Amino acid sequence: MNTQQTELIVKMNLSAWESQNKRFSELIEKLSDAQLLSETAPGRNTGVYLLGHIAAVNDDMLRLLGLRDKFFPEYTDIFIKSPDKSGKTFPSVAELKAAYNTVTNELNKHFNAFTTEQWLSKHTAVSEEDFAKEPMRNKLNVMISRTIHLANHMGQLAYLKN
Amino acid sequence: MNTQQTELIVKMNLSAWESQNKRFSELIEKLSDAQLLSETAPGRNTGVYLLGHIAAVNDDMLRLLGLRDKFFPEYTDIFIKSPDKSGKTFPSVAELKAAYNTVTNELNKHFNAFTTEQWLSKHTAVSEEDFAKEPMRNKLNVMISRTIHLANHMGQLAYLKN
Repeated sequence: MNTQQTELIVKMNLSAWESQNKRFSELIEKLSDAQLLSETAPGRNTGVYLLGHIAAVNDDMLRLLGLRDKFFPEYTDIFIKSPDKSGKTFPSVAELKAAYNTVTNELNKHFNAFTTEQWLSKHTAVSEEDFAKEPMRNKLNVMISRTIHLANHMGQLAYLKN
Repeated sequence: MNTQQTELIVKMNLSAWESQNKRFSELIEKLSDAQLLSETAPGRNTGVYLLGHIAAVNDDMLRLLGLRDKFFPEYTDIFIKSPDKSGKTFPSVAELKAAYNTVTNELNKHFNAFTTEQWLSKHTAVSEEDFAKEPMRNKLNVMISRTIHLANHMGQLAYLKN
């Protein structure tokens, strides 16, 4: 019963992650390149920056969860460490969409195979010692916080729709 | 061990809910009334509408989770069934902030006392029959989806900051 409960809750969280990514994927496919190159509100982040930012954050999860090296390590500087309009050259919209799909499909492949024990094991940015005291610093919690982070930016990206 | 795992994951989800609500609460306190009365982007929802919307949605959770009747049933029509700029009269910013605090404190009082069994029990909008087939339609999942919904609007409300 408790094992079933645990698996049910993990599944609920995974479902929320998948649902937000599906909505994101549908939105970026629906928006034109011209829309994505616009600011989401006057003086705020452009769609293309947010697209690169989400691709970079998802790519970084592969590293943080100990799954593999980043596919696009150069994105970290452009889309995480730097704000929009930093003067750095962005990849094209098509490249960023493809990158988002690559990293997210790779994450989902692993997520769908994770056992509960794997979900609740530590991520790579916490020491064994700290993890023993703070068991919430696990892989599942990374996914939960990244789902919320994605939803936060989705609300902004939605402003590019007519 | 499995009971501990289940409790840990519930705690992680509750922590995400509390964290988003804390950020929301801090943001609405930081924004001036003039800022809240502005549009979050040209032609988009005003801050005061989003504040009322979140207060109404949290109030509705009390009903959906079977905890009590809504404190502000009149908000449903103004802030959930109607879009912004519907011509309906809004309560003042001060009233909406107080309403948000009332409903959210009431929710949190219950959430902090819920057992795992209560979290995983059905919400009031699903029949016993459907719930037997779809056990994900439980109270915890309502909180997870409302956390994501709140994050979505928080991204928009953040555009009111200077």
